[in-house]
This record gives sequence, C-alpha cells and structure tokens, in this order.
Amino acid sequence: MSTPNIHGIIGYTITPFSANGVDLEALGRSIDRLIDSGVHAIAPLGSTGEGAYLSDAEWDQVSEFSIQHVAKRVPTIVSVSDLTTAKAVRRARFSEAHGADVVMVLPASYWKLSEAEILAHYRAIGESIGVPIMLYNNPATSGTDMSVELILRIFNVVDNVTMVKESTGDIQRMHKLQLLGEGQVPFYNGCNPLALEAFAAGAKGWCTAAPNLIPQLNLDLYEAVLANDLGKARELFYRQLPLLDFILKGGLPATIKAGLRATGLEVGDPRLPVFPLSEAARSQLTALLEALR
Amino acid sequence: MSTPNIHGIIGYTITPFSANGVDLEALGRSIDRLIDSGVHAIAPLGSTGEGAYLSDAEWDQVSEFSIQHVAKRVPTIVSVSDLTTAKAVRRARFSEAHGADVVMVLPASYWKLSEAEILAHYRAIGESIGVPIMLYNNPATSGTDMSVELILRIFNVVDNVTMVKESTGDIQRMHKLQLLGEGQVPFYNGCNPLALEAFAAGAKGWCTAAPNLIPQLNLDLYEAVLANDLGKARELFYRQLPLLDFILKGGLPATIKAGLRATGLEVGDPRLPVFPLSEAARSQLTALLEALR
Amino acid sequence: MSTPNIHGIIGYTITPFSANGVDLEALGRSIDRLIDSGVHAIAPLGSTGEGAYLSDAEWDQVSEFSIQHVAKRVPTIVSVSDLTTAKAVRRARFSEAHGADVVMVLPASYWKLSEAEILAHYRAIGESIGVPIMLYNNPATSGTDMSVELILRIFNVVDNVTMVKESTGDIQRMHKLQLLGEGQVPFYNGCNPLALEAFAAGAKGWCTAAPNLIPQLNLDLYEAVLANDLGKARELFYRQLPLLDFILKGGLPATIKAGLRATGLEVGDPRLPVFPLSEAARSQLTALLEALR
Amino acid sequence: MSTPNIHGIIGYTITPFSANGVDLEALGRSIDRLIDSGVHAIAPLGSTGEGAYLSDAEWDQVSEFSIQHVAKRVPTIVSVSDLTTAKAVRRARFSEAHGADVVMVLPASYWKLSEAEILAHYRAIGESIGVPIMLYNNPATSGTDMSVELILRIFNVVDNVTMVKESTGDIQRMHKLQLLGEGQVPFYNGCNPLALEAFAAGAKGWCTAAPNLIPQLNLDLYEAVLANDLGKARELFYRQLPLLDFILKGGLPATIKAGLRATGLEVGDPRLPVFPLSEAARSQLTALLEALR
Repeated sequence: MSTPNIHGIIGYTITPFSANGVDLEALGRSIDRLIDSGVHAIAPLGSTGEGAYLSDAEWDQVSEFSIQHVAKRVPTIVSVSDLTTAKAVRRARFSEAHGADVVMVLPASYWKLSEAEILAHYRAIGESIGVPIMLYNNPATSGTDMSVELILRIFNVVDNVTMVKESTGDIQRMHKLQLLGEGQVPFYNGCNPLALEAFAAGAKGWCTAAPNLIPQLNLDLYEAVLANDLGKARELFYRQLPLLDFILKGGLPATIKAGLRATGLEVGDPRLPVFPLSEAARSQLTALLEALR
Repeated sequence: MSTPNIHGIIGYTITPFSANGVDLEALGRSIDRLIDSGVHAIAPLGSTGEGAYLSDAEWDQVSEFSIQHVAKRVPTIVSVSDLTTAKAVRRARFSEAHGADVVMVLPASYWKLSEAEILAHYRAIGESIGVPIMLYNNPATSGTDMSVELILRIFNVVDNVTMVKESTGDIQRMHKLQLLGEGQVPFYNGCNPLALEAFAAGAKGWCTAAPNLIPQLNLDLYEAVLANDLGKARELFYRQLPLLDFILKGGLPATIKAGLRATGLEVGDPRLPVFPLSEAARSQLTALLEALR
Repeated sequence: MSTPNIHGIIGYTITPFSANGVDLEALGRSIDRLIDSGVHAIAPLGSTGEGAYLSDAEWDQVSEFSIQHVAKRVPTIVSVSDLTTAKAVRRARFSEAHGADVVMVLPASYWKLSEAEILAHYRAIGESIGVPIMLYNNPATSGTDMSVELILRIFNVVDNVTMVKESTGDIQRMHKLQLLGEGQVPFYNGCNPLALEAFAAGAKGWCTAAPNLIPQLNLDLYEAVLANDLGKARELFYRQLPLLDFILKGGLPATIKAGLRATGLEVGDPRLPVFPLSEAARSQLTALLEALR
Repeated sequence: MSTPNIHGIIGYTITPFSANGVDLEALGRSIDRLIDSGVHAIAPLGSTGEGAYLSDAEWDQVSEFSIQHVAKRVPTIVSVSDLTTAKAVRRARFSEAHGADVVMVLPASYWKLSEAEILAHYRAIGESIGVPIMLYNNPATSGTDMSVELILRIFNVVDNVTMVKESTGDIQRMHKLQLLGEGQVPFYNGCNPLALEAFAAGAKGWCTAAPNLIPQLNLDLYEAVLANDLGKARELFYRQLPLLDFILKGGLPATIKAGLRATGLEVGDPRLPVFPLSEAARSQLTALLEALR
C-alpha cells in the first residue's frame, strides 16, 4: 500500500442542500474554490459536511460525486465513520471503489466502547480496504476518547492505519504521540484554535473548514512554519484566531454555510435541529471577514 | 390529549438479532416475559434496544411489531430519537400511527445544540403528533445535557411534553425538578444504581432493562416504596444493586442479551462494534443471578 | 478503644470573631443553642468553623474552649486537619488531651497526594492518639478525592479510623461503602442537599451546619427516617431543601453567621477574603427562615 | 512604580530542610547554582519551595534570606499567597521591606471565592505595597480558577498587578489573554510541558523548577525562541520533555530535591505527608538526567 503524502492544509467541504436534497452543483463549485485556493487535500463528509445527518443514499451520492469532482487534483480523504462496524466497512469500501485516496475513521459510538471493541472496529475496516486510514480522535463529537496508548496500539496493529488526526485540543496528546511514537507517527491537527501550537509541536497538517472562507491565511500560516519563521507564524495565527474562534463557537456547518453565502455561493442551511446563523451572528461574521481582507 | 398513567417499573426491550436480521419471534417472547412478570409499561427501541444501530427499515419493523405485540396489555413508550428533526418527526408519527401510547425523545446530537435548537426540536415533534412525549435527558449517550431550567421551559411550552426521564444519575436534578416544577412535573428515573434514591425523592417510575432478568426484585422495590417502608426498600435495593451495577458496567445490550440466553431465550448478540459478554463476564452474571434466586 | 456511638444530627459550630479575635463568649452561646436544640454531637473547627483561617494560637483556643464548654453533654468531634502530618498530629493530640471524643481528619493537600502518602498520614495520626478518627472525604475543599477502595483500606489498616464522612455528594460512594464494607462501615453524610438520600442509603448521621438555624427540621427528618416513614421524611426534606441549597450556595460561614445575627446572636463576619452575606442575600435568608417557622 | 523587566527563565527555589528546620546554607548554595547557570530571575516560596508547608517563622526566614542572598544579581519574585487576606498582605509587606522586586499572588482558598472576593483580595494586597504583583492562576493547587475576563479585570483595576502567570496548561487561556488584552498583558507560563507552545503563543517567560536540574536546556529553548528558530526550539523542547513530564508526575519538591542530592547538594526531603522519591523513581531520574548530558 502506497501512502499518499498528506500534509499542509486539508480542507473540509460542506454539504450544500437545496429544496430537492443535496445540491451537487454547489458542492462542485465549493470544491473547486478550495482547490483553486491552494489547499493540499480535500476532506468530504466530515463533521463540517454534516455526514451524520445524511441518509444512506445521500451519503453515497456525496462521496461519489466529491471524489470524482476532485479528480485527483489533490488527495481526497473521505470520512466513513458510522455507529456500526458493518456500515463503516461498507462506506470505506464504497469510497475506495470510487477513488478515495484515504478514509478517515472516528469511532462513533452510542454505548461506551472498550479498547478491544475500538481496536476490532479499526481492524475490520482496515482489512476491508487497500487505502490508508486516518484514525480520528474527537471525543466531543464521537463520545469516545482514545488514549495515546490505544491510538499507538491501533497504529501498530492495523497496517493501513498510517495517520492520526487529533482533535481533543490538548497539545499534550501530540507531545505524547511524538515521544511514544518515536517521531514515526504522522499526526494532524483538527482543532482550529490550536493551529499554531500543533504546528510548533510538529503536526504534519491541519484539517480545517476555515479554507472555505480564509484559505490564504491558513496557507500562509503553514508556509511560515515550513519557513521556520515563528514570529511570522505567530502574527498570522493571532490575525485569524478571532475568525477561527467564531467558527468553532457558531458551529462549523452554520458559520461556513453563512460565510459562503456571503461570498456569493448559495449552499443552503444546515439540517434541523441545527439552526442557520442568526442575523446578528451573520453581521459579526461579515465584520470579521472584512477585517481580514 | 389524555395522558396514560405511566408509573412504576417501565421495562426496556432488547432487539433480538438472528442471521437474517431482527428476530421478531424472539422479540415477541421477550415482550411477553416482561408483561407476564408484571411490569407497568414497555419501552421499545431505547438504548437497550439498540435503536441507534438499526437501519430505518429495521427500526420501523421493530416499532410496529412491538406496539402490536404489546397490544395495549400495558402502555407502550417508543423511543423515536434521531439526529435530524425530520427523521425524529417521521418516527414519532409512525409510532403514533401504529398505536404507541407515548413517545420518548432524547435530543441526540452530533453538534452541540443551543437551547433554542433543542426547544425547536421538541416543538416540531410535539406539533406532529397527538400522543404525549416523555422528554429524556441522558448526556452520556446523547452528548447534550439539558439543564433543569431548560427542561421545565420545554415542559411548559410544548403541550404534549408531559413527563421527564432523567438519567444523569445526579439526584439534585430531581430535587430541582420537584422544587422548580412545584411538584407538578412527573419525573422518572433512568439510572439503575439510583433506583432507591430516585424513589425516595419522589420519582414516579423507573425505566430499566433489569426486569428482563430480575423483574420481581424491581417490582418489590417499587411496592416497598408505595407501602412507605423505607427499611424494606433499602434492603431490596442493596440486594439487587450488584446486578444493577454489573448491567451498567457490562453494557445494557450485552449483559441483558447474555442473561436472556442464560435463561433459555436466544436473542443473538449486540451489533458490532459492541462485543457480546466475555465468558468470564457471563460466569459472573450467572453467579449474580443465582445469588438472587 | 471504646468508640462513642456517633449518630443522628452532628452540628457544626461557627467561630465567632470580634475586634479582638475569637469571641469565646459568643462561641459558648452558639454551642449551648445547638445542644439545647437537641443535636446528637458537636463538631468544632470544621469548614464552617473557618478552622483553615485561624492562627495556630486561635485554633488551640477554640479547640480547648469548645471541648470544655460542651462538657460531655454530647460527644465532641474536633476537625484536626492540616497540610503537614506533623501539625495534624499535634492538633489531634492537643484535642485528645483536652477531652475530644473523636477527631475528624480531611487529607488536606497542596500537592496531589498518592494513596500511600494518604494512608501514611492517617496512620501517623492514628498511632499518636487513643480516640477514634472520623475519616473525611471532601475533594471540593481538600483537593484530594479518596476512592472508596482507598477509604476501606485505611479503615481496615488504621485501627482507630472507625467512621467515614463522605461529602462528595455522590450517593454511589455510599452504596459502594455499604456493599464493599459489607455493612460494617458506619458512614456519615456531609452534603446537605443529599440528606434525604443519604439516610435512605443507610447513613448513620448527618454532619451539618444547618442546626444553627433550623435544628428542629433537621432533627425531624432524622426521626422520620428512624420511624421508617419515607413519605414524612421526603416531605420534611423538600421543606428544608431551599434553605439547605441557599446555605451551600452562599457559603457556610457567611450564611450561618448572617442567620445567627438575624436571630440575635452576634458572631461577627467571616475572615477575608470571604465576604459577609450581601444585603440582598440577607433578605433572602430572612424570607427563607420565616417561611419555615 | 517601576516594573522590573521580568522575562526568560524564572527559576523556583526549593526549601532545604535539615534536622533543625530550614537549612539556610543549602538554600544559599541552591540559589547560587541557579544564578550561576544563567536564570533570569529567582522565585522563592512557590509550590516547589513548599511555602504552604512552612510555619510563619520559617516562611519569614526563607523570604528574608532568599532576597538578601540573591542580592539583586537577578530580580527576586516572592510568592506571598495565603488563605487569609490579612496574612497575604503581611507577607507581601514583609517581602517588599526586605527587598523583593515582585510578589506573586495565587488566590489560595478553602471556600470557593466569588469574583468580587478575589478582586478585593488582590486590591487589598496591591494597596499595601509598592512593588509589582504577578497574578498567578493555578486551580490545581489553589482550588480557584480565574477566567481570563476576571484576570483582565484585576489587571486593569489593581495598578500594581502588571504580570500574569498562567498554569492551567490550557494554551487557549494565553490566546485569550493576548487577544482580549490587545497584546498589552505580559503573560508567563507555569506549566512545564507547555513550554514550547507558550513561547510560540508569545509568553514572556517560563516559571519553572527545572533549572535546578537542567538549566542549560531551559535557557537554550528560550534562546531559540528569541532567535525565531522554531525547528531548534522544537528539537530542544522534545529533548527535555521526558524530564519535564517526570518532574510534574513525581511532584516538584520530591523530584527536584532528589535531583539536587544526586548532583551533590543535600537539601533534605519534602515535608510529610509528601514522600521523598522512591528508589525506583530515583533511578529513573538519574537515567533521564544522564541521557541529557
């Protein structure tokens, strides 16, 4: 198995809705925007993509379309998480069959899972596909917090788990991944307000919805880190931090969809019970975006 | 809207699986067992029923079959929770159409919901049906913790929210429901190891999977409380507590399914990634059950 | 060592301050009030007694005076906790020498203590005195949370640790003490809003500052439990709960001192940085007390 | 009031004990070692200095001696925290009178303090002295967590609160101090394993006990940050991180005292109930130190 070199700014796509369901035309345009802006990879159907809120048919439709529309311009990383192992396996296979370069797996759970159950879940998915898996830890949305020790065990035991995305926001997890993994475990940051420090700690990439709105600032931060220029990275980070904080607090689908609409790309509202951004919040977002121009 | 008098021991059903999917014959037998043992109501498709792990078609099948099999011998309370409001509404309507007496709603979420979003979710469901709603708070599985103040707001604003099930395990929530609700909000306990104290604090019922295994002890505890006999209630509670603790720690579907199998009712295993009980745990369960005979 | 039969309502004393330091005359009157009202034991120098805010000389003065003023009318339980083992030992010996029936020990800490360190702390105190120790768990003030397993280990290993006071407010700790301790570990409740449920779960006593203000209601609740009358206990509990909640939220020394002043016993203010009750809170307290007359 | 330029590596001193109490001779030697190694400031009587475990007389002795022994070679920052405002004021005045350049204040508490109480505490201390105050937030040892908003309010209201030391280990607090404080609030890091990221985020200094053992690595990290060399800073940080983690886990006084002893400076053991390092831990420490030579 050849692992594509996943690094840098990994942009999440939203899932646009129209009255008739998923709006593929708008999805295509949002993907093009991201790629044209320079992101290093595209990640459909994650949290931002409201993957958990789609019907099975919609999920398949978005997965297939996204992969084909990216068309290998950059690598595609499809989130295939599901509550049951059987369905996660099906989604992983489906995505691989349609050309995904990597699949991302969060151990979503209703019942608290034991470490053995989590490991078996990853092993079952790993054995079903030939592409690499980015293991994803995000207890805030999955309800399951994987310790660094467990993550490393899965990394060592399941061949195609070759990358780790950490979204707890706790920088000590990255330190531990680096020390216990002896520098051999590529890790990625999924917590926007930790972007600067995750790069300082050695993260290989930043998975984020922000490039839908401020791609250049995201890319510049990464470039400053590559250039070993801490002062510039710090300055760029603090400049974009108010927007990153706003996105997090407002909810990713609601804020990103409002932001895209503000720039002329109509992508509909999030699915209920999630509300679209209030008018007051939309004004705030506009002000934040204007301050960054 | 007439609210059925929901009280006492409310028994959760498991969802039996065979090689071909849901095993309706076994489901019917497990329901009969519960009713014959004397439970005061039946609650299908809750956590114990692995509702979150079923396909839409399976969910409909289990809902319809359970309601019809109970056949009004006792009230049926169907859990209709779903991530999207649209799907929760559909399930609530479906259950009402097939004869459910009450629907139970947990504000399941992927994204953290605001209070306004939660209220709108309950309102949308409430306006779609004519039967009462049991509002259900269980942050451990839903990811959303509703404050007592929010619960009371929903109770006051949405007409058919007429009962509250509290599963945080924090007895102070029940005190607050009682004080702020001025004794007018019927509350139910969903945390097994809190059974004694919830009744002491005035809970009207206990929603539990335990009657699948030890119905008489559950019913006796309730009777002792009704008889105002604290000493007897305490003695009965401590007697069943080791089993209640075991069920909670082992996971409800895994332990209840293992327990039913041990008593001759084959209901299959939980769906992966949830493991069936290990052999060691099964021996422990057998020992616990025998000690209670 | 003969253990006095500690049970029922165990009343905390405040430490009155005048311009010249501790006001022993007022302290004596507050002790007399408690004993005359019928409490079953007196506990000086606890949290309510601002023990942590006294100089060493003041501490000795209050300990000696309180014990002598109680004069064996009821048992005296002196809190001798201190950050260093040496000083806690000195206080325990001092209190025993002056006639304390029991000493109470919270493992106060600045640094997080290991289980071995906590055990050695209790052992050192235990070996220095001949009176029983009430082990006290209250992570909110001590910073150290002792697991039930550790508590039982200390109980089994240190001869004169013969009672356990649990103030986490988590009723499951009491269940575990009862089950793992096989009913042989007398436990006491130190969390006011848990009074009803702790008694339901089998607590032998309730350590509380409330009898300074509403002794009869506290005693009646205990009597209802002894009389096995759950309904009456529940009714009495909910009646006093708003005041118990108020005391907890307002801070024990501030609210109890304000309450005593309102009933004609001037005991000064708490030591800074703790504020006396605001005027608004004092009105609220007066209203709550009047509603209970 | 002129604020000394506090920056860089701020070294905590331990408090050496001999059979007769504080060992001033050893204290002097440990201070000389720190200054000779190049630290930018000395901080006596903090957590590492077991300030909370000293008698009042010992505290005065250590404060006076430390300040006089440092003798303005670098600034001295004395921790004057105490449970009561009166005693904290006394200590602040005492330290100023003996030549302290800065005092550090943690709002130590037994009872949970309100924001108004915390503010009044800082104001009372501030009004009593003429030297600057470093406000110190460390809920793990103080029991009080000050929000960034409260910290900024105190910073703005109390004139001589001119520096903030943050030890929650949550990097987002520093971001917020930077953004809400508009870059005008000098902040210092007190969490060893956050050293790299705190500097990345703009911390002006690092308060740490580590220079007692590995001063050069601490200083080199700071120099790399000043030189804007992120790669080198990262490499230096990961090199010293295992030792920093060890110190934190083992407890600062125990590990630092064991480390000093290993290098020929006998400073006694921590005060009970805190244990000295076990033999196994001492071997581990020796191995860690040797790996860094």
